[in-house]
Amino acid sequence: MDFIAENANWLSLIASVIGLVFAGTLVRWILAQDAGNEKMVKISEAIQEGAQAFLKREYRYVAMVVVVVVIALLALSAVSDDSSPWTALAFVSGAVASASAGYVGMSIAVRANVRTTQASSESLNRGLRVAFASGSVMGTMVVALALLGISILFFVLNEVIDDAETAANALAGFGFGATSIAIFARVGGGIFTKAADVGADLVGKTEAGIPEDDPRNPAVIADNVGDNVGDVAGMGSDLFESYASSIIAAITIATLGEGIAPDKLTEGQAFPLLIAGIGLLIAIGSSYLVRTKEDATQASLLGSLRRGVYTASGLVAIAVIVISLILDLGSGVIIATISGLIGGVLIGFSTEYFTSDNYKPTKNLSESSEGGAGIILIRGLAVGMESTLPPVLIVMTVTLIAVKATGLYGVAVAAVGMLSTLAITLATDAYGPVADNAGGIAEMAELEGSVRDRTDALDSLGNTTAATGKGFAIGSAVMTALALVSAFVTATGTQDVSILDARLVTGLMLGAMLPYIFSAQTMLAVSKAAQQIVVEVRRQFKEIPGLMEGTADPDYERCVAISTDSAIREMVIPGVLAVAVPVVVAIVAVIGDGNIIGDFVGAETLVGVLLGSLISAFTLAVMMANAGGAWDNAKKYIERGNFGGKGSDAHKAAVVGDTVGDPFKDTSGPSLNILLKLLAIVSVVIAPLLSL
Amino acid sequence: MDFIAENANWLSLIASVIGLVFAGTLVRWILAQDAGNEKMVKISEAIQEGAQAFLKREYRYVAMVVVVVVIALLALSAVSDDSSPWTALAFVSGAVASASAGYVGMSIAVRANVRTTQASSESLNRGLRVAFASGSVMGTMVVALALLGISILFFVLNEVIDDAETAANALAGFGFGATSIAIFARVGGGIFTKAADVGADLVGKTEAGIPEDDPRNPAVIADNVGDNVGDVAGMGSDLFESYASSIIAAITIATLGEGIAPDKLTEGQAFPLLIAGIGLLIAIGSSYLVRTKEDATQASLLGSLRRGVYTASGLVAIAVIVISLILDLGSGVIIATISGLIGGVLIGFSTEYFTSDNYKPTKNLSESSEGGAGIILIRGLAVGMESTLPPVLIVMTVTLIAVKATGLYGVAVAAVGMLSTLAITLATDAYGPVADNAGGIAEMAELEGSVRDRTDALDSLGNTTAATGKGFAIGSAVMTALALVSAFVTATGTQDVSILDARLVTGLMLGAMLPYIFSAQTMLAVSKAAQQIVVEVRRQFKEIPGLMEGTADPDYERCVAISTDSAIREMVIPGVLAVAVPVVVAIVAVIGDGNIIGDFVGAETLVGVLLGSLISAFTLAVMMANAGGAWDNAKKYIERGNFGGKGSDAHKAAVVGDTVGDPFKDTSGPSLNILLKLLAIVSVVIAPLLSL
Repeated sequence: MDFIAENANWLSLIASVIGLVFAGTLVRWILAQDAGNEKMVKISEAIQEGAQAFLKREYRYVAMVVVVVVIALLALSAVSDDSSPWTALAFVSGAVASASAGYVGMSIAVRANVRTTQASSESLNRGLRVAFASGSVMGTMVVALALLGISILFFVLNEVIDDAETAANALAGFGFGATSIAIFARVGGGIFTKAADVGADLVGKTEAGIPEDDPRNPAVIADNVGDNVGDVAGMGSDLFESYASSIIAAITIATLGEGIAPDKLTEGQAFPLLIAGIGLLIAIGSSYLVRTKEDATQASLLGSLRRGVYTASGLVAIAVIVISLILDLGSGVIIATISGLIGGVLIGFSTEYFTSDNYKPTKNLSESSEGGAGIILIRGLAVGMESTLPPVLIVMTVTLIAVKATGLYGVAVAAVGMLSTLAITLATDAYGPVADNAGGIAEMAELEGSVRDRTDALDSLGNTTAATGKGFAIGSAVMTALALVSAFVTATGTQDVSILDARLVTGLMLGAMLPYIFSAQTMLAVSKAAQQIVVEVRRQFKEIPGLMEGTADPDYERCVAISTDSAIREMVIPGVLAVAVPVVVAIVAVIGDGNIIGDFVGAETLVGVLLGSLISAFTLAVMMANAGGAWDNAKKYIERGNFGGKGSDAHKAAVVGDTVGDPFKDTSGPSLNILLKLLAIVSVVIAPLLSL
Repeated sequence: MDFIAENANWLSLIASVIGLVFAGTLVRWILAQDAGNEKMVKISEAIQEGAQAFLKREYRYVAMVVVVVVIALLALSAVSDDSSPWTALAFVSGAVASASAGYVGMSIAVRANVRTTQASSESLNRGLRVAFASGSVMGTMVVALALLGISILFFVLNEVIDDAETAANALAGFGFGATSIAIFARVGGGIFTKAADVGADLVGKTEAGIPEDDPRNPAVIADNVGDNVGDVAGMGSDLFESYASSIIAAITIATLGEGIAPDKLTEGQAFPLLIAGIGLLIAIGSSYLVRTKEDATQASLLGSLRRGVYTASGLVAIAVIVISLILDLGSGVIIATISGLIGGVLIGFSTEYFTSDNYKPTKNLSESSEGGAGIILIRGLAVGMESTLPPVLIVMTVTLIAVKATGLYGVAVAAVGMLSTLAITLATDAYGPVADNAGGIAEMAELEGSVRDRTDALDSLGNTTAATGKGFAIGSAVMTALALVSAFVTATGTQDVSILDARLVTGLMLGAMLPYIFSAQTMLAVSKAAQQIVVEVRRQFKEIPGLMEGTADPDYERCVAISTDSAIREMVIPGVLAVAVPVVVAIVAVIGDGNIIGDFVGAETLVGVLLGSLISAFTLAVMMANAGGAWDNAKKYIERGNFGGKGSDAHKAAVVGDTVGDPFKDTSGPSLNILLKLLAIVSVVIAPLLSL
């Protein structure tokens, strides 16, 4: 069975190519669907142009960042023997791969939206299939391109670099490249989507008194674009990074020989590649299970998505056992990987419990809206805070089991296990914004009510999957970051720092604070950007004659341009902060080595920062995501006629909750995933600096 | 100079007796002041009765807890040779001392309030002096009783216990006793005060349309009682605990010989006692500087308080140098202690910057209220998050300097230094609620406008000192907890746990989560208790004829009783949680020692819990306290006529912010101080269990 272990990267390469072919088939099928009438096509094209414009702008900035980082990485390799100039190649590959996945996924999403609307005018099942196919394109592209890049680089880097540890370090550059995209796509996209959404609502619903998705609202296209750049491209880039980094961390830790027998290093490196490859193939197969009958209820729609995900999880678990046996890796690896897989599913459940109006927390939250805005806010924050309990306990349990089973290697393969079914879990996630857009298009194109009813059913399902997807994204980010931190600590030999070392303790404090500063920046970014949208929408209502009456068209493009500008501008500070902290700490640590500065700042500080930010960002992100989800669904629950329904005082209070919840769940919360992974991957990449 | 070192406890005992005499003089002076007309006396008596009732109830529960803990401590001493049965005596002493300080301080506060009103009818300076004298009674009682207890116990325990380390461990029982009061007074008091406040406002201002402090509102007395039980007794018990624990931690670490030369252990134990003693005397002297001219502006009022505090700080710094030189402890101890002293002052400044409407953050927050409730909430949360930066950096700097200067002993003396002027800083703090009550009494007794203007000036000053006091309370709690954690880790010999030990890492996660669960409980407690007040107030308005017209009296007592009941009931879960976590972890660690359970839970887990909760509670508490302070002052800024003034839409939005901010800054935020110290002190007390 040495053949399999030694050629794992070729096998995973084959799987990734199959994935690309599958995605290509889906793309052709989607584009072959009817795009509906002229008005629908026109609206869809406006969304396409807006999304395209944002990505172009974003990628231009990314390109500049890439150039700077490449120079920095080459400089690092010049001063450190443990760092290779090939890291720069890996970095560029990671950035290109993630950008490509995001580009393709989003390009299809903005074309699938109108086709979903049209398909929904025929039947619910057809609508579901088009929207889900679009989600599958995103999910499959992310997984296939990440795996393709790693598979090729694994071969190339081990060919050109003699030392296996240096090769593994260079491979981490791929994850870093993916991160550089994620910071723009997730943070920038998050700011864009909520600025447009909040801005559109503040003027449209509140001041002008026109409904959501009304074509007279100049910000309505920006709002729809935002769903795509935030929830498709942003979410995709976040999980691309987690996915790639978890595999890289497992390979790195195996190379370092932590938790794996010395004669099993090749098998240890092969295992994550094989699980990822087989996971992709299983996910593709399972996606065919997602279909429904015409008279489907909400429950049966959700059931059909779940059928796909659970089948995939079960099959991957079997695959884990088989592959471990073939590679003779022992039961520890099996236990660790499957515990991660189960942990991911459980985190999804817990998120659903706290944010779905089928359960007590959100139901009670709805009821508390009768006490006014102040009360629903207090209660919502409390729900968010309480909701940290299950995910923290789950991640703790997975960590303890994984480490007991097979040491630090266990943490990394648990993360790989959690993300092994990503191609289908991300599909259920990325399907949501397509359905949401489809509903908006139905409204704007003034299609008959039955179409909107069907797209609403699809959209509502998308909200549930979006909430569980967020929980899953956080959980997997934490596991991935933990694996990266383990790799960093092992590589720098800082395991044995005293727990009372002042540098470690102050590093923990600094790390715990970073998520707060980062979130403050992203929250302020949304409120500033939304304010600019408000001003622009007011201006158009005032200056464009006939706009309110529907006889003149608004200038959609300006709102898209404003959202784009401010999203890109506002993400600079948090982005720089996240990259600068580990780099500055590392440089000061190097400078201080052997002199008095070293008594205050050292590699120990960075270890503290990584662990402190990990635990602080984890809890804060869960709190924000779930409070936001609960407020959103509490509002929708009222809108369905409970506690006075739309327009009641309870509803007004719930709207305030939702306004706060929007940046919580779609901007600041998810951005923290990026922060914690970014700090960790940057540290891993610059680790050679600290072993100088 | 051996005489001084060997008799430090007698010198600090003398200082504490002087403090008690000083407090007694103030009490006599306050009680000799005119209490005003019959109506004023009647209102004041209602507040006195309510406060008394709450304390009685609280102490009854405390008594039960004390009995249980005494039994547990005796059991602990039976199974561990390192734990002495005398710990139980220290525990009871700590509880009694803290309870007595709280009882006296509050009894005077509820008598000084009406005398402040009456004195303000004569002049502003007289009003200030009465209110500040009441604050001084609280400040001096806290410091003097803490010091008295420690001084006596230090002697007694070292007489009856042979082993110095066991004696130091027994002394920690005093801190634990203080904590058992603090958890009731701070958490229970915090729930009481905000339940009454929010409840009174929701019905009174919003529904019935009557102004604040209107005697027709049945919850108005409960609201005034709440100021006393929350901000006087609660705050006092919190700082009593910090003060006592910082001294005990310094003595313990000196005894363990960490950061102090082996031939200087006696001097190391003497130093914190001497600094505390001299600090008390200096604070008493400096309190005479707090007076003002009749035509005083807000700035000059604040100036007069600051003159007192800064003079005390400067004199203590000199005393630190002199005492260190006398004891020949070296410059390291001087640097560490003074860095703590300066750190405390700086944290006060930073808190003021973020929460006072003299500075940009709160001014901008006010302005954002024009965007609606959602926007001011997002902005306020962002202000709170940003405000974590300075205190974290300050505590980091103090820690690094202190440890570099004189090891772990440095952390403890830095905490002692920060708290050395507590008698006067707490006086400026505890003065606030007296002034607040005085204003309420002026309103209820329908005194002329000029009196209310003067009490308003005093009250407004109290809000500023309350905000800085909160920052100081958090900062000192963190330093104290850090010293306690150092003592725990040293005593259990867990310094050298690997940073990647899964038990440590999962302990960090668990610790980071606890503050969220704790805060969720306290926030929910406020909203539930407020809801009960609302129901009761509504009932009285409906069922008592003539109440609205002012011809019948409301039933104040029932609202006080409801607040008391719910405060005591609602604090059980968070209280039990905080005590149970370290105890359960320690017991499981003992059970698991040497078998498979030990691979999942060990002393390392508890180390993780302590550090994780420390950093997480620190940032979360600062965020909550400062966001709450900023919302409060943003609202008041609008009420002074900015952005449309009272009744405008901006004002309504700001009121929502303040409603969320109330439990943030007065319940949940401050309660976290208790959580982090409680976890640490319980761990120190049960440390002998882990060395079994």
